[in-house]
Amino acid sequence: SGRFARRMSRRGPWAALAAHPVRLVVLGFSVTVAVTTMLLLVPAATEPGRTTSVLTALFTATGAASGALSVVDTGTHWSTFGELVVMGSVQMGGLGFMTSASLLGLLVSRRLGVRIRLLAAVETQSFGLGDVRRLVRAVALVTFTVEAVVAAVLFPRLWLSYDRSPARAAYESVFHAVTAFNNAGFSLYPDNLMGFASDPVIILAIAGGAILGGLGFPVLFELRHELRRPRAWSLHTRVTLLGYAMLTVAGLAAIAAVEWRNSATLGEHGVGGRLLTAFFASVTARTAGFNSIDYAQADPATLLITDVLMFIGGGSASTAGGIKITTFMILLFAILAEARGDETADAFGRQIPSAALRQALAVALLGVALVVAATLCLLLATEHTLDMVLFEVMSAFGAVGLSTGITGELPAFGQCVLIVLMFVGRTGPIAVASALALRERRKLYRLPEERPIVG
Amino acid sequence: SGRFARRMSRRGPWAALAAHPVRLVVLGFSVTVAVTTMLLLVPAATEPGRTTSVLTALFTATGAASGALSVVDTGTHWSTFGELVVMGSVQMGGLGFMTSASLLGLLVSRRLGVRIRLLAAVETQSFGLGDVRRLVRAVALVTFTVEAVVAAVLFPRLWLSYDRSPARAAYESVFHAVTAFNNAGFSLYPDNLMGFASDPVIILAIAGGAILGGLGFPVLFELRHELRRPRAWSLHTRVTLLGYAMLTVAGLAAIAAVEWRNSATLGEHGVGGRLLTAFFASVTARTAGFNSIDYAQADPATLLITDVLMFIGGGSASTAGGIKITTFMILLFAILAEARGDETADAFGRQIPSAALRQALAVALLGVALVVAATLCLLLATEHTLDMVLFEVMSAFGAVGLSTGITGELPAFGQCVLIVLMFVGRTGPIAVASALALRERRKLYRLPEERPIVG
Ligand SMILES: [K+]
Ligand SMILES: [K+]
Repeated sequence: SGRFARRMSRRGPWAALAAHPVRLVVLGFSVTVAVTTMLLLVPAATEPGRTTSVLTALFTATGAASGALSVVDTGTHWSTFGELVVMGSVQMGGLGFMTSASLLGLLVSRRLGVRIRLLAAVETQSFGLGDVRRLVRAVALVTFTVEAVVAAVLFPRLWLSYDRSPARAAYESVFHAVTAFNNAGFSLYPDNLMGFASDPVIILAIAGGAILGGLGFPVLFELRHELRRPRAWSLHTRVTLLGYAMLTVAGLAAIAAVEWRNSATLGEHGVGGRLLTAFFASVTARTAGFNSIDYAQADPATLLITDVLMFIGGGSASTAGGIKITTFMILLFAILAEARGDETADAFGRQIPSAALRQALAVALLGVALVVAATLCLLLATEHTLDMVLFEVMSAFGAVGLSTGITGELPAFGQCVLIVLMFVGRTGPIAVASALALRERRKLYRLPEERPIVG
Repeated sequence: SGRFARRMSRRGPWAALAAHPVRLVVLGFSVTVAVTTMLLLVPAATEPGRTTSVLTALFTATGAASGALSVVDTGTHWSTFGELVVMGSVQMGGLGFMTSASLLGLLVSRRLGVRIRLLAAVETQSFGLGDVRRLVRAVALVTFTVEAVVAAVLFPRLWLSYDRSPARAAYESVFHAVTAFNNAGFSLYPDNLMGFASDPVIILAIAGGAILGGLGFPVLFELRHELRRPRAWSLHTRVTLLGYAMLTVAGLAAIAAVEWRNSATLGEHGVGGRLLTAFFASVTARTAGFNSIDYAQADPATLLITDVLMFIGGGSASTAGGIKITTFMILLFAILAEARGDETADAFGRQIPSAALRQALAVALLGVALVVAATLCLLLATEHTLDMVLFEVMSAFGAVGLSTGITGELPAFGQCVLIVLMFVGRTGPIAVASALALRERRKLYRLPEERPIVG
């Protein structure tokens, strides 16, 4: 395939990149961050009377493109132009990540469902420009459709029930639809979504956008084309849906149990409002990053539960971060197989290849190592306690964006640690898993196997 | 083998237990804890003027038998009789654990070195009474030899340099030699070993005992018989020694770097004393549990570093706890293999079987789940911060016994959580790994493989 790579490289830099798709993830993300940083440094991006340092612009750009933390309050610090830059960066980050991760997922998985494989020529283990175009078009179609529906639900509610002008309501609807589907958690309100905590229309619309974005493009694509034929769903889709449901229910139950009587979080609402808020807290931890409760006032146990959810994250090739649901589920299936004494891990009547298990293991353990190292750095650089630091680190690694409020107070070194962590947390798991899978040397074949995307 | 089990059970309860060796670990540990609890409840075990609750006796018995935490100060609370009961429990716990874990290790690993396999008839996957007797004798010989040497080094130093009567010096020497080799961390001094922090004779003698105990019986046995033929060492011995050295050096470097100028911990000593203290802190975290620094005054980063070391623990079939060094090293080798794109993990010219990898994965992930669950319980039950709670949980799970001091202040529920955690942390990894390995159904054989003990 050295000949093939040479032929590709004669066809220009785009094609060369497509032939080494892992680079696409890192390069695309870097370009988005760089452009956003420069735009945010334009004086008109900042509200009058405020100034933007290079570090603040870089942090905000990395946070927006990865859909994670912000260091200043979006509505207060940035002008409308600045807000649009942030929104554009969120949108570009989401589109770029879903596209490149889908490309990699297609390369790695030979059995990802017939329809999605038809999008690209996966047999050659590389892509031409045409494949990339088709994928971008499909990703963009799904993205804009979902965002339009979410905005269409938010608009009349904000206009009619919250005393906004039609123009302002439209602007806020689009902004939050974009940040919801892209799991970015950026909001125009200083208290994020706490003011809407008990409004089921707003909360469920945003949760719906975040869930669809967090399932990942391969799942959405398959659901769109095969919604009524569950038997045709790929293992990847089944595992992602099962894992998403399990984690959401477990997170809801655990957060509700811990916070039920805490008047600073759930306790201020009625029973329905408490369940709605706990549901949203569970969804948002994986990994939308909106908050309808004040995490600085939550029980440390809630922070730890949320840490776990943030670390796991959302679906592969989704707008969410973390080690990814399939990674977690593969490890879970492997443990269940061990407990039964089986040599192979099975799920939904398929055997999970041991190569996938080893990739899941590598992604999860590298994630743990990264989180421990970043936590150590922040513990040394600040006076904050472990629960606060760990929460911020998990939020950055998982591209979540929840915060107990310490991000804004961190010294420059601490902010740099979080910037690196957001970058690596966003690009790392998929790049690691795919790089490992693509270079894998196959020696043995077993027959009835199917591999979910890892990372 | 149903016929075989019936024939064994006709040969009495001992033989039946030996045929189901996983039960030996749990049963032996339970009996040791129960007897110790009853003896500690005898009024003569407590110093005059003090009283011992059932919970305190149970906690101390579990802590002593697993070599982990204590809830009262040993020298102040217990009379000399009580101290002897504690020492006996430590000794019984160590002997019992090393024996039963060695039995299981022999069953699981068919390639654990020729000499150690000659101790038992491993071909049948079960043991007769004679095998158990031979093993107990070999374990006891190693134990008492090392303890005698450590006590012989401590005795003249305590007698001549620390103003003890010969009888008192002998008593203290034996007590600390026993708790050192058994990695129990119980000391007769209210400040544990902080008073000896810069005395290289005392510190190195105790560290030596703790290291030998923490390597595990299979390694000690092989080193004793094949010390001059490193080429004959089994993969288990090589991996354990490499991992022990790596972790000790990394722990020393990290703790020294963080605490170098902290006058409440390392900073009070000269350069040599700082290195000695950092070395001891690194050794003791894996998992002796003595402290020569005050962890309540250490940097949170040091607590986190120590958390990681405590979770990993010592060698298999050793007196130490944790998920075990080989478990950690197997996962490390697997990740390195993934990074190279290899399908199999190799170490020292041998292939690590994928079954061992899956067991290591199960042990490590179940350990993580247990630690997270216990941390949640303690966060809910107390007002302590995450760094304090996590440190205590890791210390209990890893059978370490280091404490920031909160164990004594925990409510009854919190103490019960730690008791369960010490019990499961002690018996769990080996029981889980062995149960999994023993029921494994072998379908495929590849040729040049060798399996270290996991858990
Ligand atoms: K997010
Ligand atoms: K210990």
